[in-house]
Amino acid sequence: MNGAQALVDTFLAGGVEVCFANPGTSEMHFVAALDQRPDMRCVLGLHETVVTGAADGYARMADKPAATLLHLGPGLGNGLANIHNARRARSPMVNVVGEHASAHLAHNAPLTTDIESIARPVSDWVRRAAGSEALARDGAAAVQAARSGAGAIATLILPADAAWGPSPGPAPVPEPPARPVPSMAAIEAAARLLAEGASTILFIGDAALREEGLRLAGQIGAKTGARVMAPLSNKRIARGAGRTPITRTPYVVDIALAHFADARRMVLVGAREPVAFFGYPDKPSRLLPPDCAVTPLADASFDPVETLRLLAEATDATGVQPPTNRYDPPARPVGAIDQDKIAALLAAMIPDQAVIVDESITTGRLFFPATDKAAPHDWLQITGGAIGIGPPLATGAAIGAPGRKVLNLQADGSGLYSAQALWTQAREGLDVITLVFANHSYAILQGEMSQVGVRNPGRNALDMLSLDRPRVDWVSLAKGFGVPGERVGDMEALAAAIGRGLAKDGPHLIEIEM
Amino acid sequence: MNGAQALVDTFLAGGVEVCFANPGTSEMHFVAALDQRPDMRCVLGLHETVVTGAADGYARMADKPAATLLHLGPGLGNGLANIHNARRARSPMVNVVGEHASAHLAHNAPLTTDIESIARPVSDWVRRAAGSEALARDGAAAVQAARSGAGAIATLILPADAAWGPSPGPAPVPEPPARPVPSMAAIEAAARLLAEGASTILFIGDAALREEGLRLAGQIGAKTGARVMAPLSNKRIARGAGRTPITRTPYVVDIALAHFADARRMVLVGAREPVAFFGYPDKPSRLLPPDCAVTPLADASFDPVETLRLLAEATDATGVQPPTNRYDPPARPVGAIDQDKIAALLAAMIPDQAVIVDESITTGRLFFPATDKAAPHDWLQITGGAIGIGPPLATGAAIGAPGRKVLNLQADGSGLYSAQALWTQAREGLDVITLVFANHSYAILQGEMSQVGVRNPGRNALDMLSLDRPRVDWVSLAKGFGVPGERVGDMEALAAAIGRGLAKDGPHLIEIEM
Repeated sequence: MNGAQALVDTFLAGGVEVCFANPGTSEMHFVAALDQRPDMRCVLGLHETVVTGAADGYARMADKPAATLLHLGPGLGNGLANIHNARRARSPMVNVVGEHASAHLAHNAPLTTDIESIARPVSDWVRRAAGSEALARDGAAAVQAARSGAGAIATLILPADAAWGPSPGPAPVPEPPARPVPSMAAIEAAARLLAEGASTILFIGDAALREEGLRLAGQIGAKTGARVMAPLSNKRIARGAGRTPITRTPYVVDIALAHFADARRMVLVGAREPVAFFGYPDKPSRLLPPDCAVTPLADASFDPVETLRLLAEATDATGVQPPTNRYDPPARPVGAIDQDKIAALLAAMIPDQAVIVDESITTGRLFFPATDKAAPHDWLQITGGAIGIGPPLATGAAIGAPGRKVLNLQADGSGLYSAQALWTQAREGLDVITLVFANHSYAILQGEMSQVGVRNPGRNALDMLSLDRPRVDWVSLAKGFGVPGERVGDMEALAAAIGRGLAKDGPHLIEIEM
Repeated sequence: MNGAQALVDTFLAGGVEVCFANPGTSEMHFVAALDQRPDMRCVLGLHETVVTGAADGYARMADKPAATLLHLGPGLGNGLANIHNARRARSPMVNVVGEHASAHLAHNAPLTTDIESIARPVSDWVRRAAGSEALARDGAAAVQAARSGAGAIATLILPADAAWGPSPGPAPVPEPPARPVPSMAAIEAAARLLAEGASTILFIGDAALREEGLRLAGQIGAKTGARVMAPLSNKRIARGAGRTPITRTPYVVDIALAHFADARRMVLVGAREPVAFFGYPDKPSRLLPPDCAVTPLADASFDPVETLRLLAEATDATGVQPPTNRYDPPARPVGAIDQDKIAALLAAMIPDQAVIVDESITTGRLFFPATDKAAPHDWLQITGGAIGIGPPLATGAAIGAPGRKVLNLQADGSGLYSAQALWTQAREGLDVITLVFANHSYAILQGEMSQVGVRNPGRNALDMLSLDRPRVDWVSLAKGFGVPGERVGDMEALAAAIGRGLAKDGPHLIEIEM
């Protein structure tokens, strides 16, 4: 048995059952080892941003890490943006980065790079395998690291000789320790803050945004009068009928400041204090008022749901009825397309147990509040601000949640970073419906441009912020990647197209002229 | 005047006249400054790998750096692979990486990353602007660094407040110092080695592969009997009628070893000692025999052409007739498509002063030797082994060499990393003809797979090495990005399609069924 074979067996024993891959020559022994284990599902991405974004989507839905297979420093670089997003989501992920054989490194061959330096900024754990004998143990440590806390990014650098050399066999992967809860003193102190009512915000993230956490937070809010809110960008939120609604932090700084203006206390459970996405010349970075006290009750190492359960008990909220969405889909809007109508149509058409991947950026700001009364679904967001996550995340989510329909709400500018994911959707026969909001611009930047005082942009600014010369033809793009597509220009056509997408198996793309 | 305006003016004064860009919010003041200077040509890429690969192509043809504009660590990560390639080519490049305002960094907003850590492995020079007052001087230092020696990668990290704060104005960019030549003692010692004849190899790279350097090296070889060779992968080679032919180092290790088996001495001018691309269990990393002495006469800081001129004088080769290609295009092959016939067709149809961008990988191994007798042209290669350079490099080369036709010889697997470059070709109306060799596989990896002993690959290996389920439809892909395309299945159709592409203005794509 060689190192690569022991590594694959270690992964399988540790619950890593999918490998999103874009291999190269230095990874051939690992590919050969994967080939001997058909129970490891290998999914090819045409670009590494597909590979890493799909691993994130898989982890968000399957609640366990996938492996990725990347080719030296440039392959890791290609996948870096979506590893960054996954890290900000605290998605578990085990990256295997192929590397030159150790003896070859000194020769500075063309692909030689400082992989550690590229990996560290987007990884919680980085290790270079020292050799084939210990490789399985390195792999076990990587899986263990990825499964720690809320989830973490583990990056294992795999020199080719560690893959091809001899191994004593796979290594066991220890079960991750149970995530702790805060001390009862901390719980009771937080409970007293929450009892102050509406001037206290219970700010929840991570797994607290699943059904049970939302219910508990809703009970606490209903009992104490404290407001319950979530970050702007979240890994996964349980939504729709039967779930407790949640308000997210607004993106626009002035609107967010207004939202938090009355806050005097904030209790954090599975979330960090909200801050502005970007810094601006005359705006604060903090979104909370200066006199708002922040209590970090449970960071990402803690169990947020159990923390909320203890908080509910301490606030005497157990048994209280939390706010709960009822199923009340609106009528399907007709006529010309606008954002409000799309929001309503989504509320009407989201199928039961759908997975929504939301990279709709400017077009989609109304979608979230409008869909509370839809059928039960999960909502996945771009967490690290690195655009181009949507198609890959939808791809991985579909693999991590078989039998559920995935709707990718996709801004066009962002989607063009990673449209190659459509091909993987076609190859794997995934039930992903991509709705492209084709406004043919980086609309968010046009807004930011006017913020910096440019009212009549010239050719250079227009060239850098618009995508309409030429217009991208998404239907042809999808066809090129093997995905059927259609273009719609009114609400009736959009509803019909979504219906067609939902009715069939496999991927579908709808370009929506905005 | 703010820092961003002073930076743009500094770039323009330093000869940086093109900015390949994919901006975000933190770069809006820089975008506004670019907008005020219409003499700075701003070229948008839909993905940062297009941005950085295009900057490389521009630099190779224009012999000066372009700027890139990238959005924080993830934007730099997206562009990393082609910066790596550019660095291996020693192409000059000035990367401007937008960054959060300094005061915002402490808040760990979603896009916060350790940009320096990502930048260093692919940069020769990295600096974080300390503030707006000194920003123009930082920009001048970046341009100076990029123009040093054979060319270098300079990465300037630009916090938003350094862009928006006040500046005293632009800074002067010093002319780069003349590149030195070796001492006469070193030249004469090398001349004695070359006089040993065919057991000595004069190994030349960088600017020595332009017309004049090749002529000088050819004279030296003709006079001394020493063999003249080049690295496997090169920035730019002058080729075709009237130029001196050059033999490149083979990719396959065993073939390369055979090529160098008789070498006892190697003199390096603008090149490093040839090594294997990858390490293998039972093959050496060095390609030269153990007893071959290597003389590093002129590294990348030296002037390779002047070094060859001195060597020619020292070997008494001045005035000797070097080997020279005559124009002798073959007849256009007909019938079924194969690699030999494509090579011959290229030799017949490459137009005068064409720029060839070669990322043809396995399909194209015969193209280089077959095109010596074509019309004069330049040949650009993938230098760092990070695939996905072709379409971006062709895009930048067309901007750096206006009036010349660009032929992008493109392997399909590699081209799918960066097909977004087609859109920039359409927007800018660039004369790029992309020939896609559609073998629907990572053919090079299928060869490597059999090298590691896998003779009957199973589903996992097949899935990771083949691209034929589904087949990518390149004509639709090109249409999606606004580029006219056609698919050809025999040599007559291919010749007609190339003819159509050459006859018109603007980009054209030809998918060649292999």
